[in-house]
Amino acid sequence: MSIRIGIDLMGGDYAPAAPAQGIASALADLPSYVSLTIYGRSDAVSDALQGAGLNPSDFHIVHTTQVIEMGDSPTKAMNQKADSSIMVGLNDLKAGKIDCYISAGSTGAVFVGALYTVKPIEGILRPAISSLVPKDNGHHGLILDVGANADCKADVLVQFGMLGSIYARCILGVEKPRVGLLNIGSEPEKGNIVSQAAYNLMVHNKSVNFIGNIEGYDIFGTRVDVVVTDGFTGNIVLKTAEALVDMLMSQGVRNELISRFDYQSYGGTPILGVNKPVIIGHGVSSPAAFKSMIGQAIQIIETSMIEKIKQALMPEMIADEKN
Amino acid sequence: MSIRIGIDLMGGDYAPAAPAQGIASALADLPSYVSLTIYGRSDAVSDALQGAGLNPSDFHIVHTTQVIEMGDSPTKAMNQKADSSIMVGLNDLKAGKIDCYISAGSTGAVFVGALYTVKPIEGILRPAISSLVPKDNGHHGLILDVGANADCKADVLVQFGMLGSIYARCILGVEKPRVGLLNIGSEPEKGNIVSQAAYNLMVHNKSVNFIGNIEGYDIFGTRVDVVVTDGFTGNIVLKTAEALVDMLMSQGVRNELISRFDYQSYGGTPILGVNKPVIIGHGVSSPAAFKSMIGQAIQIIETSMIEKIKQALMPEMIADEKN
Repeated sequence: MSIRIGIDLMGGDYAPAAPAQGIASALADLPSYVSLTIYGRSDAVSDALQGAGLNPSDFHIVHTTQVIEMGDSPTKAMNQKADSSIMVGLNDLKAGKIDCYISAGSTGAVFVGALYTVKPIEGILRPAISSLVPKDNGHHGLILDVGANADCKADVLVQFGMLGSIYARCILGVEKPRVGLLNIGSEPEKGNIVSQAAYNLMVHNKSVNFIGNIEGYDIFGTRVDVVVTDGFTGNIVLKTAEALVDMLMSQGVRNELISRFDYQSYGGTPILGVNKPVIIGHGVSSPAAFKSMIGQAIQIIETSMIEKIKQALMPEMIADEKN
Repeated sequence: MSIRIGIDLMGGDYAPAAPAQGIASALADLPSYVSLTIYGRSDAVSDALQGAGLNPSDFHIVHTTQVIEMGDSPTKAMNQKADSSIMVGLNDLKAGKIDCYISAGSTGAVFVGALYTVKPIEGILRPAISSLVPKDNGHHGLILDVGANADCKADVLVQFGMLGSIYARCILGVEKPRVGLLNIGSEPEKGNIVSQAAYNLMVHNKSVNFIGNIEGYDIFGTRVDVVVTDGFTGNIVLKTAEALVDMLMSQGVRNELISRFDYQSYGGTPILGVNKPVIIGHGVSSPAAFKSMIGQAIQIIETSMIEKIKQALMPEMIADEKN
């Protein structure tokens, strides 16, 4: 067995130093069957690796000449910057040269790039991006979508429940994840038209352990493991909570729950619903975040997360195979 | 000049003690032209007023026999509990026996009751409920809608901007309130279909000082005074922030910003867009909250807030009068 992880050294506010330092600290614990391939401008990559106390010649480095900036339109960037670390890495992933790609570059560009290279899994209506949220019992939960899909139909929300459940099982180790629909009241008839329809679909969906509607205050509580919402609401809720935490931390507030909110430390989030593992890091990803994304990549591959998503989409076929 | 304020003594988690104590502490500063009418079961009202050190015979008390519970369906409650403090108070407001009604009872029942008694102002598509949010510079801003309208069309959001602006001018004393549309990116084309349409309408609307799209982290920042969003997103964002603050406070965190989040202290929110002032208190309203709602009622009437909303809806007529 071998696992080949590709890392974008050019992505994120603190690149290339932060990913290089993350690689340096990950190496100590890395199983011998894991190898790293590094994407970026070779001079910048060499300098950053040396700066992190590493020897560039110990790594497989793929030289890329272009960089997708945060302000670039994702679709344009994909076409006009084919020799960027994001696009070269994703194409190598598609071609099977690596098994997973990690980037803290433009979320939009990585997401759109993944849709066009490794592509959505057959049967997935809309791939999603999730975020970990700290729970007040010391654990973490998951919320999705957090921005990839601003408008979601009810059947898309149901799939998010399925995708989030598989992520929670594989990565968070929750055996039977409880899925809640983010809403403005607990009764089935509450909420906007989409959430009313999604409630009805989720109640009858056997692949999701649906506990019903949840409210804003449940996101950090322990009633639910996977919070399902559209990317508009999810993005706004997440940014609001992050803003509040940032403001409190900048005012000197220190607290265990707040410290676990630290989205710089828990790494990135995979794009859920595409054919191969792509992990998107937060723009402010620290060395620790890159280290934890490398760990998450290994977990995704070792737990066959993507195979499990594919299986969940074809229950009849699985049933047939069992007979 | 006289101002007659009606107060529901039966509404809220700590009723009737909390509203009675709020009345007691408000009386000291109350201008002589302000009188209070109290609604509720007369024995409970008398006991609560006496418990707050007040003499029941000093007040005009309207005896009501029914109580709308938090779990009651608003529409059913309105019909089946016509002799509840909420409905009797709202009908007295409609009949001109009082000038404003304050209740911390079921938000849904007060809202629906107001729609059916004092009715929306002509030209208002959907009345809204707002909430104050603390800003990191010590001031407060406004967010609306926070739950009355789960699905909002673009033109409804534009009206929320206008309603929020007038509230911010009259009650928060902001001369030219800056209005932002809550979204997931700053560019006009960002967000869901409704927010894209609302952006285009707001950019061209002269009655709103529109500063563009804002994001989750702007809610507590100082770029914007009035945050416009649909009631689904607004309710979830507000409850998420409240939950975070509650959790931190319960863990012993003390901070100036957090303390100003204290929705128990800043009182309630008027229903914006109905013909007469109706103020809805948070369920957990404390005596201080009731005191501040009484103050807000006086402000709404003295600043002619509702007249200003009516005027904003007929710019041509105003222009004619000026000529």
